[in-house]
Amino acid sequence: MVDVGRLPRTIELKRIGDGAVLDYVDQTLLPGELVVKTTSNWRDVVDAIKTLAVRGAPAIGVSGAAAVVLRAYEGGTRDEWLAAAAEIAMARPTAVNLSWAIERVCAEIRSFDGSDEQLRDHLLTFVKQLEKDDEACNRAIGANGAELLKPASRILTHCNAGSLATVFYGTALGVVYAAAEQGKVQQVFADETRPVGQGARLTSWELARAGVPVTLICDNMAASVMAAGKVDAVLVGADRIARNGDVANKIGTYGLAVLAHAHAIPFYVAAPKSTIDVNTPDGTSIVIEQRDPNELLARPIVGVDVFNPAFDVTPASLVTAVITEEGIYAPHEVFNIAGI
Amino acid sequence: MVDVGRLPRTIELKRIGDGAVLDYVDQTLLPGELVVKTTSNWRDVVDAIKTLAVRGAPAIGVSGAAAVVLRAYEGGTRDEWLAAAAEIAMARPTAVNLSWAIERVCAEIRSFDGSDEQLRDHLLTFVKQLEKDDEACNRAIGANGAELLKPASRILTHCNAGSLATVFYGTALGVVYAAAEQGKVQQVFADETRPVGQGARLTSWELARAGVPVTLICDNMAASVMAAGKVDAVLVGADRIARNGDVANKIGTYGLAVLAHAHAIPFYVAAPKSTIDVNTPDGTSIVIEQRDPNELLARPIVGVDVFNPAFDVTPASLVTAVITEEGIYAPHEVFNIAGI
Repeated sequence: MVDVGRLPRTIELKRIGDGAVLDYVDQTLLPGELVVKTTSNWRDVVDAIKTLAVRGAPAIGVSGAAAVVLRAYEGGTRDEWLAAAAEIAMARPTAVNLSWAIERVCAEIRSFDGSDEQLRDHLLTFVKQLEKDDEACNRAIGANGAELLKPASRILTHCNAGSLATVFYGTALGVVYAAAEQGKVQQVFADETRPVGQGARLTSWELARAGVPVTLICDNMAASVMAAGKVDAVLVGADRIARNGDVANKIGTYGLAVLAHAHAIPFYVAAPKSTIDVNTPDGTSIVIEQRDPNELLARPIVGVDVFNPAFDVTPASLVTAVITEEGIYAPHEVFNIAGI
Repeated sequence: MVDVGRLPRTIELKRIGDGAVLDYVDQTLLPGELVVKTTSNWRDVVDAIKTLAVRGAPAIGVSGAAAVVLRAYEGGTRDEWLAAAAEIAMARPTAVNLSWAIERVCAEIRSFDGSDEQLRDHLLTFVKQLEKDDEACNRAIGANGAELLKPASRILTHCNAGSLATVFYGTALGVVYAAAEQGKVQQVFADETRPVGQGARLTSWELARAGVPVTLICDNMAASVMAAGKVDAVLVGADRIARNGDVANKIGTYGLAVLAHAHAIPFYVAAPKSTIDVNTPDGTSIVIEQRDPNELLARPIVGVDVFNPAFDVTPASLVTAVITEEGIYAPHEVFNIAGI
């Protein structure tokens, strides 16, 4: 039986006495151990984001905002809080949610009329609302996306756009959970998602924990599974969606979209509308983060170079639909809803 | 500078006193250590094949044949040698070269007119000739394939169809070496090739050792590299080519072929004609070996299934050309040359 209640909350900002702490699942320890860490130090949150202990665009956004709140509770001037916010926003470059969430907190700091103590409380309440909004948003994405899936669906997903990538419930996996709750999910194929293994470590773990049938495959097996007629839909998340509908997401997403197209399988992107960046005209202007070669190699091999982009860009033409909390849209329409 | 002389011989059958031994590179220890193991026990060779210490269709074929020779040197009846040969042929199911090479040795055993001692010597000489033939074949494949490549070629390859997959020189990488010796290779992208990592551990190691510029990528990055216009040709080996030109090769090959087609990049298969199995009408009749789920997961995750096929089938329609020791052929023509 499907029960998302068995999943942990990925991040949770809490008031403790006169201060605040952030609880977060350390995702580098999954699937071996489910460990919730607690910190009152905003720099720990930056480190958690950089080391992928907290990852996934929506979770990064809210935890970055929470880090600004932790900084505020340390005291000092509001300018210092804003300076910290600017530093937090740089923790990872590709996810637009991070700068989006932090900018919202900064706007509150700049416009607040009251004491620092009142502002701190206000910011904490504000971020708690972001948490609630994220879950509500994901549940709406899930409900919208589930309508696209037929009974007994076999779904292929990449990376982890799951509950662990958000505050709770997930985006692409939010659609899976909503559909599974309606009895419409027969099977999920989870790409292991090299080099970091979000699929092997996180997606497979959270789907199994929630009671959804899941089969782990290597990234290079997706084509064979499609050719065998075992996939009814591909469902992925997004780190950024450009104004024209181009989608930046985990490296490997673009290849999956080409393969889905070649096999006439629908390719759905599930993401909150905050992922849509109207200031990015198209995929060519998205900065792709290059990560450490050691993610691929246990130890360097003399004379061997490594190419390790964290993301790729899927052109809007390969995206069947974008599933948001406000409904289902053709990729070229996302510009309209982002402005709402 | 390119120098294939820096590469080890993958397998080498040797006469030692009244007996024989097989030297083989233990590929499970690469790229950390280059270790050549020596055994006179045919069962060690079966284990080496099963554990992928020796792998690659041509290398498996010759080492399987060598294992029969080792069995012969243990004494006993010719029927016992043939029984061992049948067991050796089952070490891995997909590579046609294994049963092909062993059948050739068995034919010698059945038809030989002389003493057991004379037959053993004959078989050893016979397998030494298979070794020489393999290298000569690969050098011919390399020379033929190099003609297909333009100057400053950027080549993407999958798995290891290299010197390590053969007695020496390689098939797909044989083409790379031959082209590199002509100064025509700018860059090779090596897919890491999950789950066993033949690209990460073997292809990148041997190319770097031979002095060919190599960049390691995750399997899921191939599409991005193609989309960036960085790939002029895809070159892979084959474990079996069906009568109609369908190609069974390492899992992930099919997906690459679809991606190459979508990006209008030629997709070449380099293989000795012994890889062509006229008794296999098409890809649907090729048995795909399923391997241990633990190859994907360091340890099992409760409730998570694993799908781990070792190979996939690329339809002839996605193959630009098959490069053999006898020339370059359209996939639908391979039936003709196999009969020669």
